[in-house]
Amino acid sequence: MAGARAKTHNFAAGPSPLPTPVLEEAAKGLLNYGNTGMGICELSHRGKEFKPIVEGAEANLRKLLNVPESHAILFTQAGGTGQFSGVVLNVLAYLRSKRASTSYEEYRPPVLDYVVTGAWSSKAHAEAQRLSIPAVPGGKPFAEPRIAATTKPSKYTTLPKKEDYDISSDADMVYYCENETINGIEFPLDPNSPFAFPFDSVPKDALIVADHSSSFLSRPIVHLERHAIIYAGAQKNLGPSGVTVLIVRKDLLVDTTEACKLGGCPVVPIMMEYKVLADNSSLYNTPPTFAIYVSALVLTYLLKEKGGIEGLEKTNREKADMLYSTLDEAQSKGVLTCVVKDKQARSWMNVTFEIVGQEKEKEFLAGAEKLGLYQLKGHRSVGGVRASLYNAVEIDSVRILCDYIRTLYQ
Amino acid sequence: MAGARAKTHNFAAGPSPLPTPVLEEAAKGLLNYGNTGMGICELSHRGKEFKPIVEGAEANLRKLLNVPESHAILFTQAGGTGQFSGVVLNVLAYLRSKRASTSYEEYRPPVLDYVVTGAWSSKAHAEAQRLSIPAVPGGKPFAEPRIAATTKPSKYTTLPKKEDYDISSDADMVYYCENETINGIEFPLDPNSPFAFPFDSVPKDALIVADHSSSFLSRPIVHLERHAIIYAGAQKNLGPSGVTVLIVRKDLLVDTTEACKLGGCPVVPIMMEYKVLADNSSLYNTPPTFAIYVSALVLTYLLKEKGGIEGLEKTNREKADMLYSTLDEAQSKGVLTCVVKDKQARSWMNVTFEIVGQEKEKEFLAGAEKLGLYQLKGHRSVGGVRASLYNAVEIDSVRILCDYIRTLYQ
Repeated sequence: MAGARAKTHNFAAGPSPLPTPVLEEAAKGLLNYGNTGMGICELSHRGKEFKPIVEGAEANLRKLLNVPESHAILFTQAGGTGQFSGVVLNVLAYLRSKRASTSYEEYRPPVLDYVVTGAWSSKAHAEAQRLSIPAVPGGKPFAEPRIAATTKPSKYTTLPKKEDYDISSDADMVYYCENETINGIEFPLDPNSPFAFPFDSVPKDALIVADHSSSFLSRPIVHLERHAIIYAGAQKNLGPSGVTVLIVRKDLLVDTTEACKLGGCPVVPIMMEYKVLADNSSLYNTPPTFAIYVSALVLTYLLKEKGGIEGLEKTNREKADMLYSTLDEAQSKGVLTCVVKDKQARSWMNVTFEIVGQEKEKEFLAGAEKLGLYQLKGHRSVGGVRASLYNAVEIDSVRILCDYIRTLYQ
Repeated sequence: MAGARAKTHNFAAGPSPLPTPVLEEAAKGLLNYGNTGMGICELSHRGKEFKPIVEGAEANLRKLLNVPESHAILFTQAGGTGQFSGVVLNVLAYLRSKRASTSYEEYRPPVLDYVVTGAWSSKAHAEAQRLSIPAVPGGKPFAEPRIAATTKPSKYTTLPKKEDYDISSDADMVYYCENETINGIEFPLDPNSPFAFPFDSVPKDALIVADHSSSFLSRPIVHLERHAIIYAGAQKNLGPSGVTVLIVRKDLLVDTTEACKLGGCPVVPIMMEYKVLADNSSLYNTPPTFAIYVSALVLTYLLKEKGGIEGLEKTNREKADMLYSTLDEAQSKGVLTCVVKDKQARSWMNVTFEIVGQEKEKEFLAGAEKLGLYQLKGHRSVGGVRASLYNAVEIDSVRILCDYIRTLYQ
């Protein structure tokens, strides 16, 4: 079966490819986990088999990303979209509980600054606006979401430069999305890049919250320790869809019910409260056991076979460099155009381009499939071509894609 | 591998066993789905492969349970616990939007009647209380949760009788949990039983909401069409943990943002709004594709190999009858006691008993494992023995368990 798999090169934007050795192991575990005679989906999440899996996943994730003890690692459900709401609800409860002695009348709705660089951060901002609707018509909103920077005028094809930010001096939270999958925009690692996220401009006490869904585990997280919350849906570099990872600074694990009773923050559905997740080691209710199991296998694989986060960074840089330089050359020949012009704003994970000439794109995609190069179609909202280079995409697959791109003009 | 599986008899309370042919198919699909060369977890949820899976699952579920067109079938995440909040939030938004012309000042918080028959319905009631906390201290609560009946005095070892209910004449919603897994309590199918759920006592306009997580697909749902919302976590009879099914009367699919703006109902996180799920055919964001895929395989299997819901009812009745009559006989010999004395309140899915004599229970469980009878330990909150007889537990496994129980006195 692995042979059949080897013929395909899967550039899906997510759910995306998983390492073949992991899937082979998971297929066995699905039928008979650890010689129990029972499959992994058929075992209690509170039993002696599953607990080490979730604990091991947490420990390996901590090791891979060097997560300090100041931060908890939690597994939950409902994806990045679930966290558009989750981060706001938990942050508002945290801020309210920090100001517990302030009366409701005197309580100032927190200022939430959003950096909007694409569809996902835009949706996150929209959700913050929804969640701020006053509970009493004409009353005080729960929060004041603002836009600290946006690249909407460019149709989200670049990042703001340092001077484009207008971070509120009274911001309680600053939010960004590390990698926007649709156009392929990603904050650069280099702090000296004009497109780097301006950590230094964020007020010292403001919480930094980041959506790392689509770049998680592809390379180190810049200033991880400075973040209050980092979250990521699993289905890019970590595992199957259905599990979401949270890295949360431990002082944010507050009793949201008590905060809510003070007035001024919305109530948090029990499954969304980070403290409940943490107090129960991510097992408050039945977790998505299979998705966590496969993620645990992936984490072990990344540590043992891929050289940890440094190894992943090296390989992913190589893959991205190879594809972008091929594209830049092809662009100079006039056969295609890169969507993201600013090289330092380009995503390592999602590489987007447009084939020049009517009908040419359809031909390009059809020709690709004949070579086993799959799922290259751009997002339905923008069209074009998108090659996603997540961890499980081998460098050989990128090479084959590059060879194919060169046939456009050679 | 199937051979290795055949030696075990898995009585887990959930996540619970899945049919072996389904798992064998799923193990193939995990590596290479439908000869795409790619695994099911590696394919886009918006692609041509996955859409028929989710649509087929919906169609088969509609067929199996005879769900009328008045009701939508939705797939979501976060389990039954997620729906403890989800149902309240959506119901409150629905009720508010129905009374859109009533001013906030004149709007009366809805009355939510809970029938509390165990840990799960008790948790659901507690969540309704949390969600009712006024947004402004001393202000109007969002709802008035009440208890319409409770069996707490019996430590949840029986069901209320018809005369024990005190359903509010102004109830806007009446909630029950069809099967309580911890003690093994289930509402009987027979409408003439003194323990039957009193549908006739529910005010005509009140919404009936039911948690069917642990009995879903084991037999027909009594008065399905009378329910406003039925929900079920998958991990008992449907599939792996990580996916939740909703059957929702279509008029409940309301824009919760608009309702919220009227004041008087809490804001609904975007992922929890039923209308958003329905408008996007359960694909608003990346769904748990593997869990849905396996559920779809199970649904086909139940229809084709298990005689549909009538076949399942027949087999499950047989399994429960066999085990309970064995237990009643063993009880008469003084070697064990059944937790649920009222025969008509006994669960078909979770059968609970206690072994008489110190240390005897430990011996019983250890002896069971030697015979390949697994996961029989009672819930950590009550102890004892619990044999869960979900669909994938074969009648032969029950027979072997019964034979083993008889060795206690033979």
